[in-house]
Amino acid sequence: MIKGIQFAGIASGIKPSGLDLGLVFFEEEVNVLSLYTKNRVKAAHILYNRKIERGPVRALLVNSGCANACTGKEGIEDLYIISRELSSLLGIGEGKILFASTGVIGKRLPVSTIVKALPILVKDLKGSHFDHFAQAIMTTDTFKKTVDDTFQGKKRYRIMAAAKGAGMINPLFATMLSFIFTDYSISPKNMERPFTLLGKETFERISVDGECSTNDSVMLFTKRDEEDIEALPLFKERLLSAMKELSLMIVRDGEGATKTIHIKVEGAKKKGYAERIARRIAVSPLTKTAFFGCDPNWGRIIAAAGDAGVPLQPGKVDISLQGEVIVKGGVEVPFDEQAMKRKMNKREVEVVVNLNDGKASFDIYTSDLTFDYVKINASYRS
Amino acid sequence: MIKGIQFAGIASGIKPSGLDLGLVFFEEEVNVLSLYTKNRVKAAHILYNRKIERGPVRALLVNSGCANACTGKEGIEDLYIISRELSSLLGIGEGKILFASTGVIGKRLPVSTIVKALPILVKDLKGSHFDHFAQAIMTTDTFKKTVDDTFQGKKRYRIMAAAKGAGMINPLFATMLSFIFTDYSISPKNMERPFTLLGKETFERISVDGECSTNDSVMLFTKRDEEDIEALPLFKERLLSAMKELSLMIVRDGEGATKTIHIKVEGAKKKGYAERIARRIAVSPLTKTAFFGCDPNWGRIIAAAGDAGVPLQPGKVDISLQGEVIVKGGVEVPFDEQAMKRKMNKREVEVVVNLNDGKASFDIYTSDLTFDYVKINASYRS
Repeated sequence: MIKGIQFAGIASGIKPSGLDLGLVFFEEEVNVLSLYTKNRVKAAHILYNRKIERGPVRALLVNSGCANACTGKEGIEDLYIISRELSSLLGIGEGKILFASTGVIGKRLPVSTIVKALPILVKDLKGSHFDHFAQAIMTTDTFKKTVDDTFQGKKRYRIMAAAKGAGMINPLFATMLSFIFTDYSISPKNMERPFTLLGKETFERISVDGECSTNDSVMLFTKRDEEDIEALPLFKERLLSAMKELSLMIVRDGEGATKTIHIKVEGAKKKGYAERIARRIAVSPLTKTAFFGCDPNWGRIIAAAGDAGVPLQPGKVDISLQGEVIVKGGVEVPFDEQAMKRKMNKREVEVVVNLNDGKASFDIYTSDLTFDYVKINASYRS
Repeated sequence: MIKGIQFAGIASGIKPSGLDLGLVFFEEEVNVLSLYTKNRVKAAHILYNRKIERGPVRALLVNSGCANACTGKEGIEDLYIISRELSSLLGIGEGKILFASTGVIGKRLPVSTIVKALPILVKDLKGSHFDHFAQAIMTTDTFKKTVDDTFQGKKRYRIMAAAKGAGMINPLFATMLSFIFTDYSISPKNMERPFTLLGKETFERISVDGECSTNDSVMLFTKRDEEDIEALPLFKERLLSAMKELSLMIVRDGEGATKTIHIKVEGAKKKGYAERIARRIAVSPLTKTAFFGCDPNWGRIIAAAGDAGVPLQPGKVDISLQGEVIVKGGVEVPFDEQAMKRKMNKREVEVVVNLNDGKASFDIYTSDLTFDYVKINASYRS
C-alpha cells in the first residue's frame, strides 16, 4: 500500500469475461510523466492524455478489451464523456483523469457499458486493491506483472508498479502498458530526463516480435510534497530496477515464447552500430525460430548482423552462445553440437556477438518465434 | 536451347541425395553482369566472382547443400582449386569460371567430393540439359523455377532463366539464386545500369521473411557478338518480365507460404516514404500471421505503416483489401467480415494503402507467416 493511493478493478463487460476496467484514485494531486509509443498512429488515450498531463492529476482509468485506436475524433470525445462522469463520481475537478487502453484496434469504446460500470468501480476503490487493478489491465498475460519495492530517503518510500505485456489472444495487437506509483516526491522538471533515459535502458530494450503498438504507454506517478532531492540517485536506481523487472516479465510472457534471449553486441566502434546489430538480430525470424529449435545456428546470427545496415567486418566477428565461443574471426570453432543444443534448451539463452572493432556495446532481450506465436496471431478475432 | 550454351546437373554427393551440382558451359566467351546480396557478410563465391567477372567468362558452376559462407580465405581457396580442375577438364583458360553456392553457412565445400564428380558433370553437358541444371540448383523448392522466352530483334533471340528460392528445409538459410542466359548481344557498359534497375523492380521487391542471405546472386549472361542496340528496349522489356516471373515464383514458393500478398502503397509524398511503409508492412509478423488466418485485420496493417519511420497522417489513410475499401480516413468503413475472410482465402491477396498525401507509390510482394515456416526453420540441422 502507498498512503493516499486507492486502487480498483472490476469486470465491466467490455470483454466477454474477466476483469477489464481498472482505476487508480490519488487522494491528492500527483505529478505524472509518460513515455508513449513512437508509432505515428497513436491511440486516442495518448492523444487525450497529452492535453491533460501538463498539470497534476487525480485518477487513472485503464481498460482492456478495446484499444480505442484509429477511432478518429470520436474516440477522443468518448474519453471526454467518460472523464466527466468519473470526475463527478470521484468529486474531483474536470481534466484530472488520465486514460490507457489495450485491445482491438479500430473499434470504439463501449461508452455506455463503461459509464454504467463506473459507480461499481468507484465503490471498489481501496488502498489494498492493487491486485484488482493489476488484474484488470491483464489480457491473456499468463502471469501478473507487478513490482513492490521500498527505499530509504528522508523517510521510507515505496514503489509499486504493474504492467501488461504481449500475451493477448483475442485482441489484435500486443500492447505494452506499465504504470508506476510512488510516494516519493520529485518535480517533473527534475525527473523528466532521467525517466526518459530509464525508459531507453528498459522498455526500449525488449522486443517480442519487433512490432510497435499504437497504444504502448509507460506512466510514472509521483507525489507532490517537498522534494527529497538527496534520495534522487537512490530513487532512480530503484526505478531502473522496477522498470527492468517489468520489461523482462513482458518478454518472458511474450506471445508463444518458450525462451528469453539476451543478445549482447560488444566491441563496436559506435554504440549506434552495436544497437542496430542487436536490434536486427532480435527481430530476425530465422534466428528466433532457430532458438525455438535449440539450434546453435550461428550462420543466421551473423547473417542478421551483416544485414543491419552498419559497417561490419565478418572476419573479425566472434560469437558465443551460453558462454561458449563457437565462432572466432568469422569462422566456426569446432564445438559439440549436441551438447550445445542441450545448453540452449533453457528458459534463458545468452548470445554475445563481439565485433572486435571498438569498445561500444548494446544489449537487448527478445523471445523466440514459435508455433504458438503463429497460432495466437493467425486465429480469427471472432 | 540456346546455341552455344550447354547445361548439366548431377548428384555429386554434397547432399545426402538429389541433384546438387549444376554446370553451364559457354562454347564462346560471354559477358556477365551480377547483382549480389547487400549483406555485409558475403559468401565466398561472391568474393571470388567479383575478382573474375570483369572479363568474359566460359562457365558457371553452382552447388546446393553448402553455402560456402563464413569460411574465411580457405573458402575462397577452395574455389581456386575447383576452378583449376574444371578449367582443365573443359579445356579453357584459367579464371573463366564463375561460382554460386547455396546451403549451410559456416561449412566448407567438400572439395574432393566435388573434384571427383567434375568429369561426370562435364560428360552430362548438353544444349538440351537445361532441366538438369535447373534441378541441381533446387533445394527443397516445391516446384522448378524456369522461364523460356523469345523476342525478335535483328534476329530471333532467346532468354532462358532458372532460379532457386526460399524453400529449404535441411540447409540453414534461404538463399535466392537466379541465372539468366541469352543469345542476345549487348556490352556490359550498355547493360549494367538497366540490369541494376530491373533488379530493383523485381528481385528487390519480394520478401519472404525479411532476411537477407549471405549468398543471394542474380547473374545475367549475354553473348559477345555485335550489339543489336535497336532491340535493347525489347530485350529490357522481356528481361523485366523474366525477372519478375522468377521473383514471383520465389515468393509463391516461400518457406511454408500459403499465399502471396501484393502490398501497394499509394498517394505518398515521396517514393521513398511509400517504399519504407510497403517494406515495413511486408515484414510485419502480426500482419503476415493475420493473412495466414485470412483475418482482415487492418489495425495491424496501419500500425505497421505507422512504425515505418516516415511521416504518416493516420486520419488520411485509406486501406482496401481484395479491391474493397475497409478503412477510409483512418477509421473503419463497416464491412462484412465473414465475406472478407472468404475473399482473403485465396492464393493471391492484394492490399492497397493510400496515404492520400501525394502521388508517389511503391509495391512489393510477400508471403504469409505460417506454422510451416516455424516448423521448417526450427528443425534441427541433424
